[in-house]
Amino acid sequence: MGIRMISKEIGIAGLGKMGANIALQMLSKGYVVTVQNRSRGPADELATKGARSAASIEELIASLKHPRTVWFMLTAGKPTIDAVREAAAYLQSGDTVIDGSNSHYNESVMLSRELAAKGIAYLDAGCSGGPSGALSGMSIMVGGDRKAFEAHEGLFRDLSVTDGYLYTGRSGSGHFTKMVHNAIEYGMMESIGEGLELMEDGPYSDVDLAKVCRLWNNGSVIRGYLIELAARALEKDPKLSSVAPYVEDNGEGRWAVQAAVEHGVPFGAISSSLYERFGSRSTKRYGKRVLAALRHEFGGHEVKRE
Amino acid sequence: MGIRMISKEIGIAGLGKMGANIALQMLSKGYVVTVQNRSRGPADELATKGARSAASIEELIASLKHPRTVWFMLTAGKPTIDAVREAAAYLQSGDTVIDGSNSHYNESVMLSRELAAKGIAYLDAGCSGGPSGALSGMSIMVGGDRKAFEAHEGLFRDLSVTDGYLYTGRSGSGHFTKMVHNAIEYGMMESIGEGLELMEDGPYSDVDLAKVCRLWNNGSVIRGYLIELAARALEKDPKLSSVAPYVEDNGEGRWAVQAAVEHGVPFGAISSSLYERFGSRSTKRYGKRVLAALRHEFGGHEVKRE
Repeated sequence: MGIRMISKEIGIAGLGKMGANIALQMLSKGYVVTVQNRSRGPADELATKGARSAASIEELIASLKHPRTVWFMLTAGKPTIDAVREAAAYLQSGDTVIDGSNSHYNESVMLSRELAAKGIAYLDAGCSGGPSGALSGMSIMVGGDRKAFEAHEGLFRDLSVTDGYLYTGRSGSGHFTKMVHNAIEYGMMESIGEGLELMEDGPYSDVDLAKVCRLWNNGSVIRGYLIELAARALEKDPKLSSVAPYVEDNGEGRWAVQAAVEHGVPFGAISSSLYERFGSRSTKRYGKRVLAALRHEFGGHEVKRE
Repeated sequence: MGIRMISKEIGIAGLGKMGANIALQMLSKGYVVTVQNRSRGPADELATKGARSAASIEELIASLKHPRTVWFMLTAGKPTIDAVREAAAYLQSGDTVIDGSNSHYNESVMLSRELAAKGIAYLDAGCSGGPSGALSGMSIMVGGDRKAFEAHEGLFRDLSVTDGYLYTGRSGSGHFTKMVHNAIEYGMMESIGEGLELMEDGPYSDVDLAKVCRLWNNGSVIRGYLIELAARALEKDPKLSSVAPYVEDNGEGRWAVQAAVEHGVPFGAISSSLYERFGSRSTKRYGKRVLAALRHEFGGHEVKRE
């Protein structure tokens, strides 16, 4: 594809915490940015900071000179697919769509093929670093057409920390690599949670866990950003009594376990980490009711009544 | 206990990689060090670098002025217990034993009580950082008598990275905290292994995993020392074909799972990580033979013959 990014002009669709911060980072780095969001407020607010505000995807695309680059930063799945398909009606051959959401890699491949049929490039850009990274520099994994990547390499360089972007290969590989990153994160986080629960509920429950995490982050083998975050959380609230033991998941963990099953990859620790999150959210706890009922039936063990 | 460490004089029993490097670090920081090892070679070698060499534990202790401090850096379990008990016969009230090995916390409590009966202090010092940390600065978790800790705080400061030591509380808490650290390490390592195996054996097997790990260690949420080590290993040998998939364990993971069971702490991800290590070492694979035999018996599924 003859993709070029001729100017530092870009459109952003989706202005949640990530999208809005990416817009701010682009503005601070001299890009001419048109922003659009389903509800108008975030776009109007960014307009006060130098962005051009568009009321619709059609208007967003009309504001950009061909060849255009539009960055989508929406919820993965239907919202992203619908918005990209809507945009495709207004884009032309030679334009580029960058999907920075946590889309499923198979949906990236699907959209990539749909757009390629019109000569439009689609890059799947897995972004790590959270809202603070979106504002000041992310870690970005980019899959898709190599020429389209090369045409936008300056953009990825501008939005990432030093040496913080990587072209991972064909379509879907950026989102797949980001998905695996998040799956590893699930396992690391669960391991930290299990270990600290053993500290808290074991024979040495009086040890200061904030200090332990500070120490572990200083010269020990498990040092890293997640241990640093654990130390910060425990310094604010040593017993974490203000934090409910309810853990959401955003899809990537599930997709990674599904991919591991599809490709026959042993995935015990990460699977267990995902299931622990499901269990943390269950109020019904049906499976555990079954266990309690069975123990009662075969052994006469007492059942706690609700 | 009226424990003091009046001079920068210390004895070290056990000169493996960790013990020898701790001796070198002590020498570089102005300590007068007597060293002893079961086989004489390592002690003689350290003698060429400024240490005093002792042929036995008795001789080691005789070389030190009272109140003495002896650092034990032996294999955990029987070797450590035997050596500490042997030393106790020559030590006096007011002396201090520091056990820097990966001893089980219950053995630390046991030795602490035995020595306390003679007025000898026992500090359990969990040391993280590996041989390079032993040489240049470790992360040290110290349990035991508080006064004995305070008398040796300068020593722990000297042997650790900046702010790299912590008094964790009563006897056993240092080794317990180090054990939990290692258990978290098991879970983190297994998660990294599972994730990278999904990269290697999944639909995007052509992605450069050394570059991915370098990227992940740069601005992403899972950044940290273990991801850095993964990048280094993959840069040397991208397919890791020179590394057998055989993973040892040193005890702490087992003790942590046992402690989790004893105290009723959910430990799914870390337990799974430990069992994967067992499985990695099995050549007999008896359980999997049973599964294959059962599938053959009930479904006529073909059995691979050896």
